[in-house]
Amino acid sequence: MIIIMRPNASQRAIDKVTKQVEAAGLQVHLSKGDEVTIIGVVGDKSKLHRSNIEISEGVDKIVQVTESYKLVNKKFHPEDSTVTVKDTQIGPDTFTVMAGPCAIESHDQLLSCAEEVKKAGATVLRGGAFKPRTSPYSFQGLEEEGLQYMEEAGRTTGLATICEVTSLRALDMAARYVDMLQIGARNMQNFELLKEVGRSGLPVMLKRGLAATVDEWLNAAEYIISEGNEHIVLCERGIRTYETATRNTLDISAVPVIRSKSHLPIIVDPSHATGVRAYVEPLAKAAAAVGADGLMIEVHPCPECASSDGPQSLTFDQFAKLMADLKPYVELAGRR
Amino acid sequence: MIIIMRPNASQRAIDKVTKQVEAAGLQVHLSKGDEVTIIGVVGDKSKLHRSNIEISEGVDKIVQVTESYKLVNKKFHPEDSTVTVKDTQIGPDTFTVMAGPCAIESHDQLLSCAEEVKKAGATVLRGGAFKPRTSPYSFQGLEEEGLQYMEEAGRTTGLATICEVTSLRALDMAARYVDMLQIGARNMQNFELLKEVGRSGLPVMLKRGLAATVDEWLNAAEYIISEGNEHIVLCERGIRTYETATRNTLDISAVPVIRSKSHLPIIVDPSHATGVRAYVEPLAKAAAAVGADGLMIEVHPCPECASSDGPQSLTFDQFAKLMADLKPYVELAGRR
Amino acid sequence: MIIIMRPNASQRAIDKVTKQVEAAGLQVHLSKGDEVTIIGVVGDKSKLHRSNIEISEGVDKIVQVTESYKLVNKKFHPEDSTVTVKDTQIGPDTFTVMAGPCAIESHDQLLSCAEEVKKAGATVLRGGAFKPRTSPYSFQGLEEEGLQYMEEAGRTTGLATICEVTSLRALDMAARYVDMLQIGARNMQNFELLKEVGRSGLPVMLKRGLAATVDEWLNAAEYIISEGNEHIVLCERGIRTYETATRNTLDISAVPVIRSKSHLPIIVDPSHATGVRAYVEPLAKAAAAVGADGLMIEVHPCPECASSDGPQSLTFDQFAKLMADLKPYVELAGRR
Amino acid sequence: MIIIMRPNASQRAIDKVTKQVEAAGLQVHLSKGDEVTIIGVVGDKSKLHRSNIEISEGVDKIVQVTESYKLVNKKFHPEDSTVTVKDTQIGPDTFTVMAGPCAIESHDQLLSCAEEVKKAGATVLRGGAFKPRTSPYSFQGLEEEGLQYMEEAGRTTGLATICEVTSLRALDMAARYVDMLQIGARNMQNFELLKEVGRSGLPVMLKRGLAATVDEWLNAAEYIISEGNEHIVLCERGIRTYETATRNTLDISAVPVIRSKSHLPIIVDPSHATGVRAYVEPLAKAAAAVGADGLMIEVHPCPECASSDGPQSLTFDQFAKLMADLKPYVELAGRR
Repeated sequence: MIIIMRPNASQRAIDKVTKQVEAAGLQVHLSKGDEVTIIGVVGDKSKLHRSNIEISEGVDKIVQVTESYKLVNKKFHPEDSTVTVKDTQIGPDTFTVMAGPCAIESHDQLLSCAEEVKKAGATVLRGGAFKPRTSPYSFQGLEEEGLQYMEEAGRTTGLATICEVTSLRALDMAARYVDMLQIGARNMQNFELLKEVGRSGLPVMLKRGLAATVDEWLNAAEYIISEGNEHIVLCERGIRTYETATRNTLDISAVPVIRSKSHLPIIVDPSHATGVRAYVEPLAKAAAAVGADGLMIEVHPCPECASSDGPQSLTFDQFAKLMADLKPYVELAGRR
Repeated sequence: MIIIMRPNASQRAIDKVTKQVEAAGLQVHLSKGDEVTIIGVVGDKSKLHRSNIEISEGVDKIVQVTESYKLVNKKFHPEDSTVTVKDTQIGPDTFTVMAGPCAIESHDQLLSCAEEVKKAGATVLRGGAFKPRTSPYSFQGLEEEGLQYMEEAGRTTGLATICEVTSLRALDMAARYVDMLQIGARNMQNFELLKEVGRSGLPVMLKRGLAATVDEWLNAAEYIISEGNEHIVLCERGIRTYETATRNTLDISAVPVIRSKSHLPIIVDPSHATGVRAYVEPLAKAAAAVGADGLMIEVHPCPECASSDGPQSLTFDQFAKLMADLKPYVELAGRR
Repeated sequence: MIIIMRPNASQRAIDKVTKQVEAAGLQVHLSKGDEVTIIGVVGDKSKLHRSNIEISEGVDKIVQVTESYKLVNKKFHPEDSTVTVKDTQIGPDTFTVMAGPCAIESHDQLLSCAEEVKKAGATVLRGGAFKPRTSPYSFQGLEEEGLQYMEEAGRTTGLATICEVTSLRALDMAARYVDMLQIGARNMQNFELLKEVGRSGLPVMLKRGLAATVDEWLNAAEYIISEGNEHIVLCERGIRTYETATRNTLDISAVPVIRSKSHLPIIVDPSHATGVRAYVEPLAKAAAAVGADGLMIEVHPCPECASSDGPQSLTFDQFAKLMADLKPYVELAGRR
Repeated sequence: MIIIMRPNASQRAIDKVTKQVEAAGLQVHLSKGDEVTIIGVVGDKSKLHRSNIEISEGVDKIVQVTESYKLVNKKFHPEDSTVTVKDTQIGPDTFTVMAGPCAIESHDQLLSCAEEVKKAGATVLRGGAFKPRTSPYSFQGLEEEGLQYMEEAGRTTGLATICEVTSLRALDMAARYVDMLQIGARNMQNFELLKEVGRSGLPVMLKRGLAATVDEWLNAAEYIISEGNEHIVLCERGIRTYETATRNTLDISAVPVIRSKSHLPIIVDPSHATGVRAYVEPLAKAAAAVGADGLMIEVHPCPECASSDGPQSLTFDQFAKLMADLKPYVELAGRR
């Protein structure tokens, strides 16, 4: 931590800050420039509330030198992690495609999806049983009934399964039926839920919050890993910006940024990022080319009849074509 | 709902959409222009999935004519609401100030705060017992111990009390000790929590999410009211933008916007909006002038020693001065 | 300037950076912590390209200690400035209202506006003769004809006049007819235009760019002042965010932020900030309460007939009422 | 254009709007629903000021059915355009790489860049002679001297050349030396400059503004094409968001969005989008995969010594490696 004093800070103010730091058992390194004095802090900074120094007399600003996340930080764990879900591995050597409907609507809908996405090459089946919807009057999900279909689909096809959980109740229920949990964008900073998912020990996919910085996202992952669960996959799904031509703005740079800051795998969800079916294919290729570890794609037997997110869902034929078209890109990236 | 067809949409496509609409028991009004055909939909639109029409052949876009929130909508409830919390009324005739520390840290800290903010004119005591923190390694709150101090502070001073709840567990606990619940920005779309708060029947303050639109915010309030709880106060606390000179950007226009769309009271939190103590006073005056129904302000006996958000907290003296300076603005606004 | 090295930076890397700094004639202060080494740089940093140090081996990041703007910086000019335009003074003791139509449309339109806004208490007449329009097919302004009406309106009413300039050609023309120039949001970083306005010596109002930070805005002002023209008034007119309930989002916090960083006056434009007539009055009051030095308001004899921005324009009656309602707020702020 | 009336709009209000529309020589189609009345407008809408209808009594909102840009609109020109610059073609069959230094600094710097980028496979040389810099105290460019080096570099290597112009003066000068003009992000809505570039007839690359929507961007291109110049290439270079891990946020979805709305070619600038050298390569691959028509990349003989944007510039070796790595992606995209 570095404390930058104002140009006109008095010696008294500098001495006061110095004492505050030393009182917390830390050492200071003073550096007096022509214009400003800078106070470097050495030692375990968790003993010191950054924000309180910030309002001491004469302090201009504080610069944090080290990140607040530790266990997900690449600095302390340079090798990229691989997360195993059933028979699927998500990490630097593979390109994993998770596919399925936005919401589970019926036995037939889900089972037909499962068969088709497996045939096309996906290895994880997605499907929502608890739907966080902007309006209370929209379809909210089949809950346990949907989870039972997921369990059956996973059993009969061999696919791994993933389902979003939106509360501790949903988590307890889902943990009995699916192989991987998903934390959605709206719950990225639902810290109680993150801790509980951490305690569950189940593989988890953590979507980026709608307006979350990369740092906040990695700190959210730190909540999970600090409870002992390191089976975490990140998912970039678009952020909120002023642009309305797409539902969200896919921050594709987040893939190399995360790669440089963390060892966790990261996949891309082009369906939610754009909200437009026609853009899913080009963005899926871009994700493979940029170095993502996989994709999450929405597929529906009849997008026109979907109870949620129809416009961004691919038909079975479109999905099969996408997977075929993606193949050479995945090979170019040196993945299987 | 209005369906706008593409310029080159075929008659077959128009017929297909028309049939989709009619199949849902709704009527259509066709309007053929030189360039495009427009299909107006008449009837109960909840029978129709907007998104599925959106991907029918030849459809360009769908325009929603009516808002998805009903019970919080001013159109159907033109008179402004007043929410009563203990002896305090929050609504069009009053200007209510909620004040207290960001986090409850000790018995003495909270009790001294309670006395001082009461003396200065606040009528609601705020204090966090469950702190949602970006990093898992930051102070997370005193939980039940903190709530007990809140209960005591409310009892001895007569102030109403408010505390943020971040989970069902926190909600159950807080409901036994405080007069009003707070849903924080990070949980604005934690729909399970919203429903439960709705069922609790307790007065609730719903903060705007970091990147929530006014429409999403009112839909979140609709989750609460649709469970039968209409004691809702909204709180604008700054939104996330590209500007970094302040922690968030206070969207002061949200006050008149909410006033025109909803009957719910709205207050402003200048402390979280800016993160800078020196900006609290001018923004508090602006909030009174723009027509807000009150303020939430962070106050701490010793901001330099605070375990959370020290830089934005006012000292007792600063708060007393603020309340005195605000007085003529409140009177100008015709409130008490 | 402070250079923060990576945790694993070698002594060789540290030595190399040290030499780079010293080669530019500057001194270094080394501070070795447990985790990282920090290199403070002392002396005239303009000799050193920050960005090149940034890519030297082992460098983590650079922290700028001092702002790049000097002449508009409050640190070096603590007293608030007052800008004089004809008989009007814009600064800490006054509250100046500029009003008039978005675009000048005819002799009668402008002259009637001038009389009415003067009667209501405005002292500066605004009116656009060169309109920067998103589409090339929208009305682009009356140009010199409009300026002649401005000159006449200023002469007959005694009001000072202001007109936006969008090019050097417009600047040369406008300088012959009006008292004050305006740089619009779209041209805030049109640096050639800024320099030329600086050389003109005329009072200038610099609107904030649609997505400009406060720092970029002050640097744009520095372009003008560095050419010798210190008659600069800033104008906050809303920034672009994800929220669509208003045309832009008024960043009202920018007023106290600018106040703390610069000595230049700052006014607020609630008409462009919201794009909605009904929100102009509450935001105008908020601007007075927050400490702004004045307002810019759009007024039109017949908003329904306006060629530009009708929905945000006030009628004469609405403007007169606004001015009357504002009066006690201006007095409370201790201004005339 | 569709006019949506408020639920409670009176028959008188509906009649008034109807008359306003008909008075402009247009026809109306009335559609009365249970809740609202909708008025469809048929005919040449340029005769009607949308905004004025918007404030007529009883009007809730106006929905624009057709885009305001015509000549760059794919609807009226379905075939993708190819722009020829010297011997290079930019369009659907090619993948064009423009490379060179951010700023031209010296004869040797530019000539060595030209040779190396040509050797690696680039066909257009970029180099800034007029630099729009945030601070007036930063290096502003070599101007005519730089342009002379560009002319020489183009002549000796056979590369086409491109240079940003920031004013009419710069445009006049650059037009005598280079093959293609660039409008930078800060000048995307400098409409005077756009019109003049339109009149010049020279090929032009139009960068997206920092906070411009796709619609505003295409309207800016319409300014150029409406002056008779159709040799326009768009360039996505990142937009401003709240995320600070990269300098800007590359909106890679803009490539398929533009593809669906316009026939103009679009290239991607990963150097400015991220500001970080290490992210250029993955994003360049993503751009090829997503379907862009080319790239603009910053290259410098000695990034550590660059006078501008060193941290994002590639060395010659890095650029050669990038071009080799890109090759299979370009082939996969079916381009040469």
